[in-house]
Amino acid sequence: MNSNLRRPAFFVSDRTGITAENMGDALLEQFDGMKFKRTSHPFIDSPDKAHALVRIINHAAEESGIRPLVFSSVSNDEVRAIIKSAKGLHLSFFDAFLSELEQELGTTARHSVISRVQNVERYDARMEAVNFALNHDDGVSDKDLKEADVILMGVSRCGKTPTCLYLALQYGIRAANYPLTPDDLDSSDLPRMVKPYKNKLFGLSIQPERLHDIRQERRPNSTYSHINTCKQEVADAQAMFRRFGIPFTNTTHKSVEELAVSIMQECKLKRKF
Amino acid sequence: MNSNLRRPAFFVSDRTGITAENMGDALLEQFDGMKFKRTSHPFIDSPDKAHALVRIINHAAEESGIRPLVFSSVSNDEVRAIIKSAKGLHLSFFDAFLSELEQELGTTARHSVISRVQNVERYDARMEAVNFALNHDDGVSDKDLKEADVILMGVSRCGKTPTCLYLALQYGIRAANYPLTPDDLDSSDLPRMVKPYKNKLFGLSIQPERLHDIRQERRPNSTYSHINTCKQEVADAQAMFRRFGIPFTNTTHKSVEELAVSIMQECKLKRKF
Repeated sequence: MNSNLRRPAFFVSDRTGITAENMGDALLEQFDGMKFKRTSHPFIDSPDKAHALVRIINHAAEESGIRPLVFSSVSNDEVRAIIKSAKGLHLSFFDAFLSELEQELGTTARHSVISRVQNVERYDARMEAVNFALNHDDGVSDKDLKEADVILMGVSRCGKTPTCLYLALQYGIRAANYPLTPDDLDSSDLPRMVKPYKNKLFGLSIQPERLHDIRQERRPNSTYSHINTCKQEVADAQAMFRRFGIPFTNTTHKSVEELAVSIMQECKLKRKF
Repeated sequence: MNSNLRRPAFFVSDRTGITAENMGDALLEQFDGMKFKRTSHPFIDSPDKAHALVRIINHAAEESGIRPLVFSSVSNDEVRAIIKSAKGLHLSFFDAFLSELEQELGTTARHSVISRVQNVERYDARMEAVNFALNHDDGVSDKDLKEADVILMGVSRCGKTPTCLYLALQYGIRAANYPLTPDDLDSSDLPRMVKPYKNKLFGLSIQPERLHDIRQERRPNSTYSHINTCKQEVADAQAMFRRFGIPFTNTTHKSVEELAVSIMQECKLKRKF
């Protein structure tokens, strides 16, 4: 075994592979410092595709001299059996749990890919939420703000837009966002546009140093990006959140996923699909 | 057991719970027609929170009279052990796979939550891709179109925008989109704006009936939403895709996730983080 080589890690699915990837990532990051060569193989839903993948896995095993890891989420028994004939350690999600679940539920599972007929309601909820987020990005409109499930508030470039879009795409949540301008921050009151919706507000804060870095990318060496401006704006925004009892979180060390789930939890929002 | 009651299904995680939810959904949808009462419990990362959750699960077990299902993705051994003391069938992702993986890799895993220090590169790639998608939505600008990883092309309302945003958020892919107007469709050439980037184009098609429904929501009883308009535009768009050898897919029965993964695969795009 050549220790300079990274161990191959395959993520295999008969659908998108998002579950297999998430599962594999959660497990692999438990092993500090180890490096893996990851490849994803979605839509492996026929014996032919499975056989072709087996050849790829076996080739990787031979070439690297290291036994590959194969994380798989494949519901079809025949396809799964073919994949398991490849050289590797197989961590198969359906093998691990499906029979236990069948026993508990007292019935037999499908053991096949569900051809998800377009769920029109889900699509519509998602589209509506995405359009809402786009129409209410950066405080452009207070039209229909009463329809918002949540309104994210914070200084420019603190992470509002991607969080709103993620909430819309992942959960169908109608998330608007409102950027706190220097004028808003000088005022002792809540901004006029969002004042009627105080109970929907959620604040985003950020470390001034990180905000400075982000703003430098956008407008280098400007007052806008100066570290003192960043410090002042962040301090004023947090003071506003505290004064009006608006829940808030610091985005600096959080991923968009973590922010979205935290906001769902804090604001007691329910996914729409 | 009261068969009218839905069996409680808990999704438990010491992080966002997205993996536990995906895993649970993939398993539960294998059981046709069964109904479950789902609740998600993210950020269960301390013994106190675990004990509080055990009380909730036990209460659900007593109230429903049905043994709950507990899908969990919890890396900390102590927290996981507490959760497993709750009444229910526990499907624990780390229990199923971690020791096997430790053995294979010849090392001990962390068995603890990784405090993900903000991965600045990941955040920046994501932000850049989201901004790119927003700046190149609906063909508003051909500036920097040469920086695009992919350009989605299709008639109005066929699903371009959410797919672009999902590609940006999930994979850091810079996805632009270009709406085919009636003028574009009358022409025998590719639209001027995207012509220089023919090898980045990917087409989205849709069933005319579904397009009609979507457009009716937006502009009821208009020429734009008329079924004949929809049929003609879809036929013209597909003819254009075929004439210029542009790969395309039908969005009607696909989720945004499926579309995104298909496009990644077809265009050989690599995730940026």
